[in-house]
Amino acid sequence: MQKEFIAALEKEVQELELNAQPIELYEPIRYLMALGGKRMRPVFALMAYHLFKSDWQKAVAPSLAIEVFHNFTLMHDDIMDKAPLRRGKMTVHEKWNENIAILSGDVMLVKAYDYLNKVKDLSLEEFQYLVHRFNITAAEVCEGQQYDMNFESRTEVSIEEYLEMIRLKTSVLVGFSLEMGALLAGESRQVASKLYRIGELVGLGFQLKDDILDVYGNPETFGKQPGGDILSNKKTYLLISALQQAENELAETLVYWLSEKAPQGTEKVQAVTAIYNVLGIREQAEQKVKAYFDEALAQIDELNISESGKSQLNDFLTALMVREV
Amino acid sequence: MQKEFIAALEKEVQELELNAQPIELYEPIRYLMALGGKRMRPVFALMAYHLFKSDWQKAVAPSLAIEVFHNFTLMHDDIMDKAPLRRGKMTVHEKWNENIAILSGDVMLVKAYDYLNKVKDLSLEEFQYLVHRFNITAAEVCEGQQYDMNFESRTEVSIEEYLEMIRLKTSVLVGFSLEMGALLAGESRQVASKLYRIGELVGLGFQLKDDILDVYGNPETFGKQPGGDILSNKKTYLLISALQQAENELAETLVYWLSEKAPQGTEKVQAVTAIYNVLGIREQAEQKVKAYFDEALAQIDELNISESGKSQLNDFLTALMVREV
Repeated sequence: MQKEFIAALEKEVQELELNAQPIELYEPIRYLMALGGKRMRPVFALMAYHLFKSDWQKAVAPSLAIEVFHNFTLMHDDIMDKAPLRRGKMTVHEKWNENIAILSGDVMLVKAYDYLNKVKDLSLEEFQYLVHRFNITAAEVCEGQQYDMNFESRTEVSIEEYLEMIRLKTSVLVGFSLEMGALLAGESRQVASKLYRIGELVGLGFQLKDDILDVYGNPETFGKQPGGDILSNKKTYLLISALQQAENELAETLVYWLSEKAPQGTEKVQAVTAIYNVLGIREQAEQKVKAYFDEALAQIDELNISESGKSQLNDFLTALMVREV
Repeated sequence: MQKEFIAALEKEVQELELNAQPIELYEPIRYLMALGGKRMRPVFALMAYHLFKSDWQKAVAPSLAIEVFHNFTLMHDDIMDKAPLRRGKMTVHEKWNENIAILSGDVMLVKAYDYLNKVKDLSLEEFQYLVHRFNITAAEVCEGQQYDMNFESRTEVSIEEYLEMIRLKTSVLVGFSLEMGALLAGESRQVASKLYRIGELVGLGFQLKDDILDVYGNPETFGKQPGGDILSNKKTYLLISALQQAENELAETLVYWLSEKAPQGTEKVQAVTAIYNVLGIREQAEQKVKAYFDEALAQIDELNISESGKSQLNDFLTALMVREV
């Protein structure tokens, strides 16, 4: 089903009514949405809907609310992070300017609510509950971004704080995607929240996998040069773990490289990666990813849905877990 | 009623649940909302509601969606305009920083939808129509801001383009405020759109009055030093008119002062104001304001509502028209 979901979503994206004026506001939205991505979140929503009802086409437009919202956060986060590239292309604030990226992003958030507003066949109460959950999730994603920025200027961040940050910044939206699919299909809030929890676990695993790929990913398939997190001293799961576990000379070497601001990037990436390797950080992180996915798979197994539904969810999750890109 | 409306709105503002973490995101929202302002837009919404139903208290929370949205636009516009002050206090990006102003504003827009989501007693279809109208208005306000920025770098802007810009940036939200009040009271879309048009006219008059006050306002009551628009060469109704009407030596003098970037602010303000005075620009602008308000008053008179309702709307509009602050 996944291919059909994606095809339907891409068709809907192409039909986005973005020919409005002034062009400075709408062109960046078209640009960013066309950069692609896996459309993982709305696919999750459609998959969850399809667990309960077969007419998933009805859920395509509302599901795009999540994708448009996600891309809105990318547009604004890229300004804040001063990121030059997104999916290998210039970011909006680089290609146009910061003001356009702010304002175009604002319109994009409004457009996300436009898609959400396309929901049919629910009562006012059920619809407002869905919007309420969307709003909570949206605010949490912003909270996660703020924590992420706060952590940059802090000297110490604990693993727990880091996991809570990525839960907010990444996982809650994946959780909401599955939840939304269930709510759109008319399922109870209880069932929907079970799916939310599964999505949250998947999101956590997904983000940790991202941390790993940023160091160990194959540059040819990963789409960007590995080592970006190391060069920017980003306090990822890997770095925080290494800082906790490194002792004596290894600790000194790690601290030296963190203070090293010289442009010889490759050397720093190699040196820090070597420390990770000595400590077995990659294996620990892969273990953690596996634990999250295993827990998600266990919770899928407990769902009161068809076996074919379970295996569909399982397959999608497994593909996410073993991905190298 | 106006005082009761404002008191109820202020109480609701104070009850805003903004104690969430991280504080960097929520403190700026509290700060900006507490700077006050006339709460003109939600008062309009309550006033329109009260034309049709007496239990206006029900409309207080949903009406705040407009006020929170309006303040969100101020927070983001101030970043784009590099404005140091807002209502005599530091702007959010000055007091904190730009990233916080971007992200805090994003959360604020989500909070606006939270308030909108508090609407009760409508069908799903009626509620979604209200949200649809809110979304259109919100996008238009952003479009107006983009045109405003575009005009800064253009050499010529026509009066028509300027009026369309302020219609989008300011008037549509005033129009929507009245429209929303009617829709919340369960009135038809036709009745609501008549009120929308009245609000649009009021918004246009209000903004032109602002242009006048920026030059001719009493600094003690206006709350800011007059002349800001002149110093920044802002293409207001006054300047565009003067550029169209000035001839020969007067035109040369005006162009000279526009090219003058020297810091002797007072001299430039006095010189340009003198040109406005020679051309009678203030009187023309006041005429235009009066024409908008007169048209609004005429349309109020044609509404199928009680005489006391009409006079209440009339009084509020008249107060806005003759304001010196």
